[in-house]
Amino acid sequence: MTTAKRDTYTPETLLSVAVRVFNERGYDGTSMEHLSKAAGISKSSIYHHVAGKEELLRRAVSRALDRLFGILDEDQARTGRAAERLEYVVRRMVEVLIAELPYVTLLLRVRGNTATERWALDRRREFDHRVAELMKAAAADGDVRGDVEVRLATRLVFGMINSIVEWYRPDGRGMGEREVADAVVTLVFGGLRRDG
Amino acid sequence: MTTAKRDTYTPETLLSVAVRVFNERGYDGTSMEHLSKAAGISKSSIYHHVAGKEELLRRAVSRALDRLFGILDEDQARTGRAAERLEYVVRRMVEVLIAELPYVTLLLRVRGNTATERWALDRRREFDHRVAELMKAAAADGDVRGDVEVRLATRLVFGMINSIVEWYRPDGRGMGEREVADAVVTLVFGGLRRDG
Repeated sequence: MTTAKRDTYTPETLLSVAVRVFNERGYDGTSMEHLSKAAGISKSSIYHHVAGKEELLRRAVSRALDRLFGILDEDQARTGRAAERLEYVVRRMVEVLIAELPYVTLLLRVRGNTATERWALDRRREFDHRVAELMKAAAADGDVRGDVEVRLATRLVFGMINSIVEWYRPDGRGMGEREVADAVVTLVFGGLRRDG
Repeated sequence: MTTAKRDTYTPETLLSVAVRVFNERGYDGTSMEHLSKAAGISKSSIYHHVAGKEELLRRAVSRALDRLFGILDEDQARTGRAAERLEYVVRRMVEVLIAELPYVTLLLRVRGNTATERWALDRRREFDHRVAELMKAAAADGDVRGDVEVRLATRLVFGMINSIVEWYRPDGRGMGEREVADAVVTLVFGGLRRDG
């Protein structure tokens, strides 16, 4: 039995509980019953806030996607040389990933079984495409190497950035958001090899 | 009902079916019933080959781990400057990942609920540690930059390499194992920035 607690949730606070459960059990493996237990309120109380678990998924991945697309609208992503804009975007992606860790984690695990999941995958591809365009422009300027195909380079760089969700924990002993963002920018643009 | 087919499996061919099902459904989400249906033989025929699904998991991740640890015993991983050995190991990791794609994919998705999964995670950590030691030696030689902490750099490099399982498909239109391995080595050591 669920120990009923007074429903003091808003759609936003309920969302943070749902995202935690989705990340733990997988979206497919989560039932309204699981959400009800985790939130400590009845299923009908949850239905008072949202139409169902797919709406919670949509709200959660929208939050991650809005933050990611928001980066592309920031001044430093829009003005200056393409290579500098690209560097800014890579740094901000790491910062957003860490600031919105559970939401971005969920977004990256979406697999595409429902309309919402397919929509999220489409939006992710669109974001990847926008960053790939920036990389292409930087290569055309001669600032980024031309010997690695842009689509492949984009995938590998995104792979490095996205892998952070697998091990970064906010209470990590001493490793801050800044240190991780600096390391990613250094490695993505300069590589491991010592210069000179 | 399972359409019974004559059991012509060996432990190895049965393994390839099991790995495919584990990757599709997740290890936790796979029952002996699912394996029996996918293989087209009865559950008791499967038990003739293996003690259960955990044995199949152990054999599958062992195969991936043996190939990965095997790299470290190869001549070029054992002789020469640390930076050259590291470069060789990074290239071979990509090659092994692609050659053993389903097995490495399964290894990377292991989460640690059973004794076999915890053992696999320990072995993965041990492999990561061996590569981190190589990176540390290369930094001590002055060949690898010292401004990114070795453990963090190792995680990010592994993140880039391991992300290949998310998108690489053997029938990929024209993108071969060699092109991917070259791109990873170029980016990991030289970065995106054009030299000079």
